[in-house]
Amino acid sequence: MYVILVYDMGEKRVGKMLKLCRQYLNWIQNSVFEGEITEVKLKELILKAEFIMNEEEHDSLILFKSREQKWLEKEVIGHEKNDLDQFL
Amino acid sequence: MYVILVYDMGEKRVGKMLKLCRQYLNWIQNSVFEGEITEVKLKELILKAEFIMNEEEHDSLILFKSREQKWLEKEVIGHEKNDLDQFL
Repeated sequence: MYVILVYDMGEKRVGKMLKLCRQYLNWIQNSVFEGEITEVKLKELILKAEFIMNEEEHDSLILFKSREQKWLEKEVIGHEKNDLDQFL
Repeated sequence: MYVILVYDMGEKRVGKMLKLCRQYLNWIQNSVFEGEITEVKLKELILKAEFIMNEEEHDSLILFKSREQKWLEKEVIGHEKNDLDQFL
């Protein structure tokens, strides 16, 4: 399935979350990821994310899931992340 | 149509962008919005957003558009924004 993942985390935990999400999805904006993922891999990602998150500090993770990417049209306005960014 | 909007802005411009997006969509996370919007209203929102954005400073806005909300399943993990937050 195709997913969009956005998180809002306390500064201390952002680095860990970024590293985790990049193992599963494509990084397209500061705290936004997208990509094809299996249900099993997504469950694994969520479990690991919950381990990093601190709900008392209002950390949050939102997933939008779609069976097929073609049902969603993406439009980027302004700066678009490219491969170079990924290595910064 | 149903849209998800995420932005990544320089700190100086975040307040303006937040205020703008809240006029058109529902605020669901720090820099994430969703909602039903007409094509005309969306064009208006994009024009106003471009006026706020500074591309030299790598401001970016990503839109995911879907003809129908039912094609997307949303899952929130951790803290969920509620109406009270909206007035903070």
